[in-house]
Amino acid sequence: MSNPVLVEVTRGQLVESRHRGMVSVIDAEGTPVMALGEVSTPVFPRSAVKSMQALALVESGAADAYGFGDKELALACASHSGEPEHMRLAGDMAARAGLSEADFECGCHWSSHQRVLIDQARAGDMPDQLGNNCSGKHAGFLCLSCHAGVDHKGYVGYDHFVQSTIRDVMGDLTGAALGHDNCGTDGCSIPTYAAPLNRIAHGFARMASGVGLGAERAKAAQRLMSACMAEPFYVAGTRRACTDLMELAPGRIFAKTGAEGVFCATLPEKGYGIALKCEDGSTRGAEAMIGTVLAKLFADDQELSGKLRTWTQKQLKNWNRIEVGVIRPTGDLA
Amino acid sequence: MSNPVLVEVTRGQLVESRHRGMVSVIDAEGTPVMALGEVSTPVFPRSAVKSMQALALVESGAADAYGFGDKELALACASHSGEPEHMRLAGDMAARAGLSEADFECGCHWSSHQRVLIDQARAGDMPDQLGNNCSGKHAGFLCLSCHAGVDHKGYVGYDHFVQSTIRDVMGDLTGAALGHDNCGTDGCSIPTYAAPLNRIAHGFARMASGVGLGAERAKAAQRLMSACMAEPFYVAGTRRACTDLMELAPGRIFAKTGAEGVFCATLPEKGYGIALKCEDGSTRGAEAMIGTVLAKLFADDQELSGKLRTWTQKQLKNWNRIEVGVIRPTGDLA
Repeated sequence: MSNPVLVEVTRGQLVESRHRGMVSVIDAEGTPVMALGEVSTPVFPRSAVKSMQALALVESGAADAYGFGDKELALACASHSGEPEHMRLAGDMAARAGLSEADFECGCHWSSHQRVLIDQARAGDMPDQLGNNCSGKHAGFLCLSCHAGVDHKGYVGYDHFVQSTIRDVMGDLTGAALGHDNCGTDGCSIPTYAAPLNRIAHGFARMASGVGLGAERAKAAQRLMSACMAEPFYVAGTRRACTDLMELAPGRIFAKTGAEGVFCATLPEKGYGIALKCEDGSTRGAEAMIGTVLAKLFADDQELSGKLRTWTQKQLKNWNRIEVGVIRPTGDLA
Repeated sequence: MSNPVLVEVTRGQLVESRHRGMVSVIDAEGTPVMALGEVSTPVFPRSAVKSMQALALVESGAADAYGFGDKELALACASHSGEPEHMRLAGDMAARAGLSEADFECGCHWSSHQRVLIDQARAGDMPDQLGNNCSGKHAGFLCLSCHAGVDHKGYVGYDHFVQSTIRDVMGDLTGAALGHDNCGTDGCSIPTYAAPLNRIAHGFARMASGVGLGAERAKAAQRLMSACMAEPFYVAGTRRACTDLMELAPGRIFAKTGAEGVFCATLPEKGYGIALKCEDGSTRGAEAMIGTVLAKLFADDQELSGKLRTWTQKQLKNWNRIEVGVIRPTGDLA
């Protein structure tokens, strides 16, 4: 079976490029609501599951011990653009556990967002670990470790308390076996586990609905998703897809992207979990897919559905601001 | 028919993302040497055909009139990184026709290459049209127009002398009907025409071999490809694929990429023309495809073939420089 073309990029009157993908939407009872492409194929969810990875931070009491509010919890679930607010807050979170930038193990990089990068370069800055898009998650890991009284050194390692805790939580949520066999190393050096796409979607349905979760976990899941929806800037940044989508429908969409064309989301009011991947790993493909899937799932709300369709269909402009084409869903998706 | 997966991106022991594509290699007689995927599908070749677009500059005598050597001709065929040498030379080419940056109609953009962009931002520069990756081609267009005594204003327009000349040349070379029906607007605002991939490959085979071309055109084609192979830095830039490939095999490979996952090449010694497109438009996919195709076509030269395979298989490292995966050809391609 091959994955269908879900998004096409046009130029003039013709289709120039095509993005294939797989989409799984699962409801609270675990029943598929939508399935396109090879939904039982294992997929590395990458950063799209940061909210799952942050559950232990809340469940353990660490988040409360360090006084984390919505912004901090949103940043713990974030792939941020390294804007000054993001970097400052990541540093502040670690400081509450008595730690600093040098204790992070995520590595440094320039912002992947041109405007931020240009500002950094102009200011004479050099990348540091707080600017890593995962620094909020890592701040959470450091706090989880310190609160548990475990030496934080090596917290990105497969066998460290932080990663084994996360592995257990994610295995429970998704029902997938996670271990060395399906483990890869993520951009920020922590393990990432390939799980069937529909199991990832089911895990998010559990987070959205609480069905099948213990009371503490259900509460922690709600708290994290609510924090992200309340502070969407801290989940991504200026003009970023996750931020945009959560701002479009306050409290009704939790959305988080991951590298290599992954997008996950929950619709709390419906108890749905969503996981999708653009086969080729492209961001523009995954963004058009999630926007269209959300518009379909909100077909009963014409206004929101319309906003989502408008957001999804991106006009492509060239260097002279001339419209040259569009990114749009294909018939198979729309 | 669907395009086969030609390149895969791994993480740990698993494949994380996949790139499909179509490849056409045609020999001097017009016979297919290799065909993968839908090779008769119309494809926008974008910047991969800049050498075809530069033929009139040479054939008209404009290149000689303005004293263009290898560097200038290479830049006329280039998608450069906007490094200082590229920008300076583009400005110098226009100046020989009495024109300046303000006469370009390509638009401005920051360099797409992070190192160059950071240098520009740190120097307090703002993007100008000489930094546009197409500025060398546009300098050539300006010179073609001025040499012909035609007002250069509006030279990017479909009906301008420059574009109608190019349309005729490319129609002759590819044997494809090029017109409004298959026309799109390129990033730098000139028309780009979707032609069947195997006709584009055949056009390059004609350029490589001279078969079926008049003596003047055959000479102009040789001169342009030789200039690019002699000055590969001016065709792209530091650590760029086109530059790398031409440096790997001096005088034996002419290679030029285009936006949205296109790569074209010629092998002068074999008289082959090559055109390929990564279905999803990705650069990493197209680069792995061209490297592997070139390695196969040079199977009779073990050393070169080995170098090309080594160049092709890119190790992916994360922000801590840990190896996390590779980009590699699939069995269908390799």
